[in-house]
Amino acid sequence: VFKGQHNEKSSVFADLSAEEYLQVRDFMINRKELHISANAFTKPSENFLFLIDLSLPKKSDVLGYLDENKPKPTREATAVVFHGTDGYIREYVVGPLPNPKYFKDVTFERYKEALPINARTVTIGEYVLMFKFLMKEVFTRLGKIVKESFNVSIEDTLNAFEGMPRGIQSGDRHTWISFFRDFSGMYIHPVGFEVLINHNSTNSSLWSVTKLLYNGQYFNSVDDLLKKYENGTVKKIVYKPVPNYASLKPKSKPNGLSPQQFNPQGNRFSVNNNHIMYLDWSFAFGLSSLTGMRVFDIRFKGERIVYELSVQEAMSVYGSITPGMMLTKFLDSSIGIGRFAHELVRGADCPYTATYIDTYRYIDISAPQRFRNSICVFEHNTGRPLRRHFSDFFHNSYGGMVNSALVFRTITAIGNYDYLWDFIFYQSGSVEAKVHATGYISSSFKVDGNLRYGHQVAHDTIGNIHTHFINFKVDLDVLGIKNVFLTKDMEFVNVSLPWMPEHYAMIPQLVEAQLKTEKEAALRYNTKMPRYLHIASNRTNRWGHQRSYRLQVVSFTGDHLPETEPEERSMSWARYKVAITKHKDSEPTSSSLYSQNNMWKPAVDFSKFIEDNENIENEDLVAWITTGFLHIPHAEDIPNTVTVGNGGGVILRPHNYFDEDPSINSPDGVYISPG
Amino acid sequence: VFKGQHNEKSSVFADLSAEEYLQVRDFMINRKELHISANAFTKPSENFLFLIDLSLPKKSDVLGYLDENKPKPTREATAVVFHGTDGYIREYVVGPLPNPKYFKDVTFERYKEALPINARTVTIGEYVLMFKFLMKEVFTRLGKIVKESFNVSIEDTLNAFEGMPRGIQSGDRHTWISFFRDFSGMYIHPVGFEVLINHNSTNSSLWSVTKLLYNGQYFNSVDDLLKKYENGTVKKIVYKPVPNYASLKPKSKPNGLSPQQFNPQGNRFSVNNNHIMYLDWSFAFGLSSLTGMRVFDIRFKGERIVYELSVQEAMSVYGSITPGMMLTKFLDSSIGIGRFAHELVRGADCPYTATYIDTYRYIDISAPQRFRNSICVFEHNTGRPLRRHFSDFFHNSYGGMVNSALVFRTITAIGNYDYLWDFIFYQSGSVEAKVHATGYISSSFKVDGNLRYGHQVAHDTIGNIHTHFINFKVDLDVLGIKNVFLTKDMEFVNVSLPWMPEHYAMIPQLVEAQLKTEKEAALRYNTKMPRYLHIASNRTNRWGHQRSYRLQVVSFTGDHLPETEPEERSMSWARYKVAITKHKDSEPTSSSLYSQNNMWKPAVDFSKFIEDNENIENEDLVAWITTGFLHIPHAEDIPNTVTVGNGGGVILRPHNYFDEDPSINSPDGVYISPG
Ligand SMILES: [Ca+2]
Ligand SMILES: [Ca+2]
Ligand SMILES: [Ca+2]
Ligand SMILES: [Ca+2]
Ligand SMILES: [Cu+2]
Ligand SMILES: [Cu+2]
Repeated sequence: VFKGQHNEKSSVFADLSAEEYLQVRDFMINRKELHISANAFTKPSENFLFLIDLSLPKKSDVLGYLDENKPKPTREATAVVFHGTDGYIREYVVGPLPNPKYFKDVTFERYKEALPINARTVTIGEYVLMFKFLMKEVFTRLGKIVKESFNVSIEDTLNAFEGMPRGIQSGDRHTWISFFRDFSGMYIHPVGFEVLINHNSTNSSLWSVTKLLYNGQYFNSVDDLLKKYENGTVKKIVYKPVPNYASLKPKSKPNGLSPQQFNPQGNRFSVNNNHIMYLDWSFAFGLSSLTGMRVFDIRFKGERIVYELSVQEAMSVYGSITPGMMLTKFLDSSIGIGRFAHELVRGADCPYTATYIDTYRYIDISAPQRFRNSICVFEHNTGRPLRRHFSDFFHNSYGGMVNSALVFRTITAIGNYDYLWDFIFYQSGSVEAKVHATGYISSSFKVDGNLRYGHQVAHDTIGNIHTHFINFKVDLDVLGIKNVFLTKDMEFVNVSLPWMPEHYAMIPQLVEAQLKTEKEAALRYNTKMPRYLHIASNRTNRWGHQRSYRLQVVSFTGDHLPETEPEERSMSWARYKVAITKHKDSEPTSSSLYSQNNMWKPAVDFSKFIEDNENIENEDLVAWITTGFLHIPHAEDIPNTVTVGNGGGVILRPHNYFDEDPSINSPDGVYISPG
Repeated sequence: VFKGQHNEKSSVFADLSAEEYLQVRDFMINRKELHISANAFTKPSENFLFLIDLSLPKKSDVLGYLDENKPKPTREATAVVFHGTDGYIREYVVGPLPNPKYFKDVTFERYKEALPINARTVTIGEYVLMFKFLMKEVFTRLGKIVKESFNVSIEDTLNAFEGMPRGIQSGDRHTWISFFRDFSGMYIHPVGFEVLINHNSTNSSLWSVTKLLYNGQYFNSVDDLLKKYENGTVKKIVYKPVPNYASLKPKSKPNGLSPQQFNPQGNRFSVNNNHIMYLDWSFAFGLSSLTGMRVFDIRFKGERIVYELSVQEAMSVYGSITPGMMLTKFLDSSIGIGRFAHELVRGADCPYTATYIDTYRYIDISAPQRFRNSICVFEHNTGRPLRRHFSDFFHNSYGGMVNSALVFRTITAIGNYDYLWDFIFYQSGSVEAKVHATGYISSSFKVDGNLRYGHQVAHDTIGNIHTHFINFKVDLDVLGIKNVFLTKDMEFVNVSLPWMPEHYAMIPQLVEAQLKTEKEAALRYNTKMPRYLHIASNRTNRWGHQRSYRLQVVSFTGDHLPETEPEERSMSWARYKVAITKHKDSEPTSSSLYSQNNMWKPAVDFSKFIEDNENIENEDLVAWITTGFLHIPHAEDIPNTVTVGNGGGVILRPHNYFDEDPSINSPDGVYISPG
């Protein structure tokens, strides 16, 4: 069924191949002067090659290559090294690929400052040491208490879940670790035991336990708890077996297949390397280990509409009275969103008949890893007309068509939560970026006062209130890169009626404006903002109107963290429902790998993109879109949050971009007239 | 596949059958003293049986019948008679059915006042006279002008489209009629000619043309236009053929079927009379000629959750400089929403494999009419997981299930616009009411100044700015009829950290409130309102929390008409995104048949439901939900508005109603663990 020619030049956006990761890894390891290890168990005190990822070429170079037959930009990788021996983090650009010959420290170029070593993500190497530390310093020493309270033994252990940020100021690496029953779905099995570890030093022999929480009571040391437990001044938790209410094992037997889709005529899309074509659409794609799913060079009938559409960050702020969750503010891209794009399950995560694509990543590991079937692509019949009209007046006829659209999907399971990421391509020329949350909520042990922060959802378990904020980057290029930001809305105006001028009525008028600076175009949540937001060209359509794409945001967020909080700078993108900035290669992402563990002095503070208040008239504009929802957990979040109602997104809609609805040209159109 | 027992008592909600309509019609016709005609061409000066529809029994009687084995409520019909001879409208209740023996005038009981005859909907009988009038008084007399300007001849006519309301004060029946090319999709083919008719009198011989608009110029009479046209003081429209850009005929040949769903194991739902069962769900349904689709007695696992979920009204306010649209405020239920639920097209409006249901109606007609396949029901695989979690930490496993849900749908094509109405039943216990708009926009001829009210979308054609406001009635009964209205939200509170009390941080807390009066619970658009709204029982779930359903509204409305406008009272429900009232049988709908043509003194003013500010604590509560979107038409609305992004709705979500997510019991669950 499918016809058309794939764009081979899309390789410029392609993720690194397994071979390329190996080339970069080996090249870096062989820089003997750097003393870098590529062993996944490298200690924090050593130099560890944490991440290798594609280094995207400059946009102007890519456009020259795509549009003007200029040479292909040099293919380069970013390599992130945690220099434990020296106490800093460095980002290197390695190239050219294949067969790298150079590497360059780009840390200052990219972040304008050094990256302190404690801004790093906790590696597997560090986790191994932390678990050993906990075993030795906590569980072994508290053997009797943890046996009596939680039935912990050599065979039966508890699982750990960390709070973040790790402290209250830059440099801190003080992590509250909460313990959970060793069940699948541990996240909703808190036992009421939390431990604060100071692992500030890269030398694990200097680590210490600085506080403990047991059944709502704080202790200054393991000895303190031991002593008070023995002398009877501790309110004890007495172990009782609890069934695994977190289990996802179905409670009913399958009774046959639910409705399924099939493509009677074969696929109407085609995937070739990292390029996809679907009816009038085409785009390139990639999956960043950090930020996740992204597509580039989205074209409709060959005309580029979007240069980049990408996930940027998933953030959550929690409330609790328990220390492990009280300060918790997760910034997932610092752990890696794309990193957790695992294999998709046919028939549940995506349709059986979807096309599944493998991805390869190199993050916190010794060798590149293949993630089988981690992206799916399918055409979906939404079961709803895209458009239709039936007329029984004057002309009796019917015209319509079903809404079949292409879905491009990954699902990332980052610890407890699973985010479902969809980019959807409609035949009417719209593209939608959608996110849904599912998986396990985070929870805390029920202690006095914690019902102010959530509802009880299971035995002794509080589902804690939290926000979900998601940021997307939308680099629309409407007929080239020079665009303006338009707003449209309505306003009631008291107007004299022309045929009876003495009579007045309030009539809705169209109100249009062009916002000309970044600060004007930074549209905060909870302010009244124009209902229609457009990235527009000054070129007009057939009817004389500026050709544009409209941004329609669907969002149910709760309040954003007050800006007075020092952590807020690391998530300042969440202030804005929509913010428009002038495109800069030096502002590729709204967050960074180094934000979670240095929230107070984040390597990227999005609000600074706006602070210089640049002119956005006839410039290359980028829209940063924030969506999400407030989550007050309830019993129905057990065992898993459902996707229904728990999502958000943005629809990019043509608005005077075309001269008419392009779906009129779809082969799916149906027309019926009386015989 | 399907198992279970249908509830025969659902017949209490069933629409009238063809036989019942005939019984009522004949009974009323035979009341000779009323001199009623059932001829669809009855003149306004005569008495016309306009409507017969089910008269819903009192809720308490229905509940007695359903829940307490009390006798079945008497089956009755409402008959609406336009008493042209007497100058009023009367509503009669006719019963018992079958074989009616009595009729009762309930006009005062229902509306507390008389219904003036000019509040009536324009009937086919009146339209016939209006078209004759126009032909004789306008087109024949302006023969040369309309020939030269619009190529109008005996064979080639123009089509008419009316503005509403018909005037500026109660009693007015002054209608601006705009003319459009005689094409399919005429609504986007304005020719620039509009005529104001005074058809105030039920005696059509007293009708008159009181104003004309031709190419942006006003004339006081046909003679005035004739004279000025002849003496050359009129800016003429010179006829030029225009292709039919409104045609819905596909421009591409079909290239095979798009993706289709099928049910490999047969349907998992069953339809019996007006009762539907689907997995754990059951409900009764009906289709009111006026308000449209509605379901009753929605139960999950046999437990009633919703007594009534129904469409109430679809309203649009337009802006224009042209008189036909300048004052236009459509209230569709006055014309009849359900009335226009026509046959659904397999494969475009609903899946091929859907179950299609016939409906019967009696409105503005001589005999009951069958509407074949006017409701569809199908289970839809949304192509997305309802829930899922993959774990690669500690426990390696996957659990999830695809989101398959039951869709109950009608599509109503009211003149230019088609609204798609969906009630969706999810396996997680949620019910969603969704509306999408498609079909043709309304348009006006391009004249000076009209670009302030919209964009040009076709040759000489302005797509005018307008609002879409939709009202749903949601009568949740959470564990019986005695409920409370709860709100939940978050608030950042500065809290001392228990393990380092000298340090403070802003932590989100859960804020709950119970709103106790109708005025408190009338939540206006454009005010900050709590993010979570709940209809709750005082009975608690396993974890001690009030069992509730949450109302999650998805809406993109523009501004509502200012309350200072006299027409606003007819649409005062649109002030509120959510309003909670105490249930009353005397407040069955938020709008009425008599609102459109008497907007200034509407038979139902929703704001009065709230004005008495009743207590809503432990009462039978009804939620009135308003959704919609601001529509600034653009070129892509030609030929038809697409559904993508053009909709809204409300999700009813269990929130501590259950003790866990009920979908864990679904047979669709999938679980995978390492082998
Ligand atoms: Ca800037
Ligand atoms: Ca751009
Ligand atoms: Ca009341
Ligand atoms: Ca109720
Ligand atoms: Cu959540
Ligand atoms: Cu519209």
